[in-house]
Amino acid sequence: MLDALKQAVCQANLDLVAHGLVTLTWGNVSGIDRATGHVVIKPSGVGYDRMRPEQMVVVDLDGNVVEGELRPSSDTPTHLLLYKAFETLGGITHTHSTHATTFAQAREPIPCYGTTHADHFAGPVPVTRPLTADEVEQAYEHHTGQVIIERFAELGLDPAALPAVLVAGHAPFAWGDDAAASVKNAVALEAVAQMALGMRTLNPTPPQLESYVLDKHHQRKHGPHAYYGQR
Amino acid sequence: MLDALKQAVCQANLDLVAHGLVTLTWGNVSGIDRATGHVVIKPSGVGYDRMRPEQMVVVDLDGNVVEGELRPSSDTPTHLLLYKAFETLGGITHTHSTHATTFAQAREPIPCYGTTHADHFAGPVPVTRPLTADEVEQAYEHHTGQVIIERFAELGLDPAALPAVLVAGHAPFAWGDDAAASVKNAVALEAVAQMALGMRTLNPTPPQLESYVLDKHHQRKHGPHAYYGQR
Amino acid sequence: MLDALKQAVCQANLDLVAHGLVTLTWGNVSGIDRATGHVVIKPSGVGYDRMRPEQMVVVDLDGNVVEGELRPSSDTPTHLLLYKAFETLGGITHTHSTHATTFAQAREPIPCYGTTHADHFAGPVPVTRPLTADEVEQAYEHHTGQVIIERFAELGLDPAALPAVLVAGHAPFAWGDDAAASVKNAVALEAVAQMALGMRTLNPTPPQLESYVLDKHHQRKHGPHAYYGQR
Amino acid sequence: MLDALKQAVCQANLDLVAHGLVTLTWGNVSGIDRATGHVVIKPSGVGYDRMRPEQMVVVDLDGNVVEGELRPSSDTPTHLLLYKAFETLGGITHTHSTHATTFAQAREPIPCYGTTHADHFAGPVPVTRPLTADEVEQAYEHHTGQVIIERFAELGLDPAALPAVLVAGHAPFAWGDDAAASVKNAVALEAVAQMALGMRTLNPTPPQLESYVLDKHHQRKHGPHAYYGQR
Repeated sequence: MLDALKQAVCQANLDLVAHGLVTLTWGNVSGIDRATGHVVIKPSGVGYDRMRPEQMVVVDLDGNVVEGELRPSSDTPTHLLLYKAFETLGGITHTHSTHATTFAQAREPIPCYGTTHADHFAGPVPVTRPLTADEVEQAYEHHTGQVIIERFAELGLDPAALPAVLVAGHAPFAWGDDAAASVKNAVALEAVAQMALGMRTLNPTPPQLESYVLDKHHQRKHGPHAYYGQR
Repeated sequence: MLDALKQAVCQANLDLVAHGLVTLTWGNVSGIDRATGHVVIKPSGVGYDRMRPEQMVVVDLDGNVVEGELRPSSDTPTHLLLYKAFETLGGITHTHSTHATTFAQAREPIPCYGTTHADHFAGPVPVTRPLTADEVEQAYEHHTGQVIIERFAELGLDPAALPAVLVAGHAPFAWGDDAAASVKNAVALEAVAQMALGMRTLNPTPPQLESYVLDKHHQRKHGPHAYYGQR
Repeated sequence: MLDALKQAVCQANLDLVAHGLVTLTWGNVSGIDRATGHVVIKPSGVGYDRMRPEQMVVVDLDGNVVEGELRPSSDTPTHLLLYKAFETLGGITHTHSTHATTFAQAREPIPCYGTTHADHFAGPVPVTRPLTADEVEQAYEHHTGQVIIERFAELGLDPAALPAVLVAGHAPFAWGDDAAASVKNAVALEAVAQMALGMRTLNPTPPQLESYVLDKHHQRKHGPHAYYGQR
Repeated sequence: MLDALKQAVCQANLDLVAHGLVTLTWGNVSGIDRATGHVVIKPSGVGYDRMRPEQMVVVDLDGNVVEGELRPSSDTPTHLLLYKAFETLGGITHTHSTHATTFAQAREPIPCYGTTHADHFAGPVPVTRPLTADEVEQAYEHHTGQVIIERFAELGLDPAALPAVLVAGHAPFAWGDDAAASVKNAVALEAVAQMALGMRTLNPTPPQLESYVLDKHHQRKHGPHAYYGQR
């Protein structure tokens, strides 16, 4: 079942490696089939060099394994909660990519400093609050999803327009219309994080992008009048 | 038509990737045939892994597509304006390369700190002013070209001697005698930006290169008495 | 003798290169056969491009060469002392990886700033005291092992839970259940060092990870209730 | 003539690329045959992808081309002067490698912060004074060699023990017993420069390596009682 989705999710996981976002096995991509509510996700702790589509694990939105002989990623509960709360998501990518994780660990949002950022994220990439001891002790990965959702609600953010978040003390999650789109946003997030870090060496309080340029660039790629690319 | 130019422009786009200047599809190279005024440019949002010469788009200097089934790069109006204003240009490269973009976002010119810089750029690489809201709203990419030209006029710069610019809050453009030469200048710009950034960690106000060394190195490669290389 | 171990140690040395932790020949991995007390280690100064399992050198815990035509790594006495003092170790990796060595040279421990760190190291990665002139003059590599053991004793650290150390002014050592596990910890150490260094640009006194998250993440991978991976 | 040396010099130039020290064509390696006083050097501005041993240029110590159809590197006069002044040199490497060039541009010597440095360089890597306008105007590359020699004389340095230098505002030169050894020292120089730069983010005045460790490490590899490697 879901062969095309398994193929896409497996390829998206391999693309993470090709884009240099993965060290060891730190990273996972999932995709959802909204018709059935089934989520396809990378198995836990499996090396990328021997990853095949048929190893992908199928789970339902309650976390029950529907198909697959391997354990799903330990981050599966976070993915599931995001799919339930953010209904436009088709794919989710979690990485420990170097520069985005540096900001997550420093617990600083990534301001929008340029058009590279605006092309992907319609504003600063937010950072969650830290989890409490109770949240960590019980259903840790589920609560990781909770603090993401809580932060987006507090800031009134649209996850379709701001497809990434930094989990405080942990690492980023990115998402998109499908697994491949979530990888692209994870790649963009790492790139803008690296540039934002470099800017801090040049200027402790660098200028942010004018809001009208931010809007323009985001609409160039994503609005109803988008004119970037071939569609 | 223009098969050799299409081949050269396609190869130049692929060379950008080989030099590590491209993330996802952020980057484009064009070349001009001055005899006909036709510009060959990369199609918008097409992946580099499947790029072929016959996909390159031919446009005239007014932006009309003369040949090609794909949309030209969304940055085409910027390229066209530069070709019209700077008559010595044969090729233009636009990237979001990490360190040059970091300076563009910080809105700081890159001073000439060493001979690597002087070999390619006869002085500091300038940064444009930000675009106004009106300029962004109407013909954004055209106005991006305008602020570049404006800045070169204000500073009295010769685009043949200073073949690169940083667009504030955006990213660099580089150019040269042909598409391949513009890629080389984009590569050099990224390298000098990375070194300039590192210097700021060592010394907030690092020493600039003596003007007589700058002149010497630039002439070694570019003046009438050039003696670098095989010609 | 010990063909499987030679194969594993040779592969672990090559994996170091694949993970980008080795410049020139700076790095070595060993593994121990606890049944015989024989240690298999990389030969000294041999290039990685022509390394084969049969070149690995077998020494006993007193440093006598038991088998092999090449000299063992000059760091062998350090490896041997660690195997003797830390009885749970099955493999040891020594590198001069860029960012971990930067902290070792700065003589600063690497605090636990995030879950990437906690997944591998149950607390800050310690740094040794400098060796005295006498210790350097006589049996230098042996004393390098001594200051590591001394530091772990002073801090009451369990080498199984904290499988890495920074030798002041020198570079890191990492270890694990076997040669491959020690390489993984060396890779993780380099990654967390790079992120810790970046954080210092953002914030001179960055927040450390809450102790309850540190414990949770370490147990997720290593405790009796570990649930990461396939076992 | 000198086929073996041409082969070695060509390979050393290609190794520079493999070690990531070369951008575009910025870099050159030479080797000398002390019996004849003939120097084999890379041709000027030739791409590395099509470099072959028979393209290497043979010059005598006065700079006359003895064999070869291409122009020798524009840096040839610097190489020749170093061979004449420093009689133990068998090979010389010039690069614009990122981090070593960053220090050269900042005009700061690289202190000995750790054993990686001590393994290759018996003390801080010095930086020359800037050239005067006259020196630049007349025989620029020859005077580049002069300020190197002048600096070594002022500091009483032995070029065999300290096989590298930073030319102020320009870039590094490294050398060794032969072309391959000079490349290794260039690689080591870039590595220690990168670590030294990172240390400055951690600590503006980082601790230097104790002199007795510096001596020990250098002797471990280079002294009469060297015990690193297989010889």
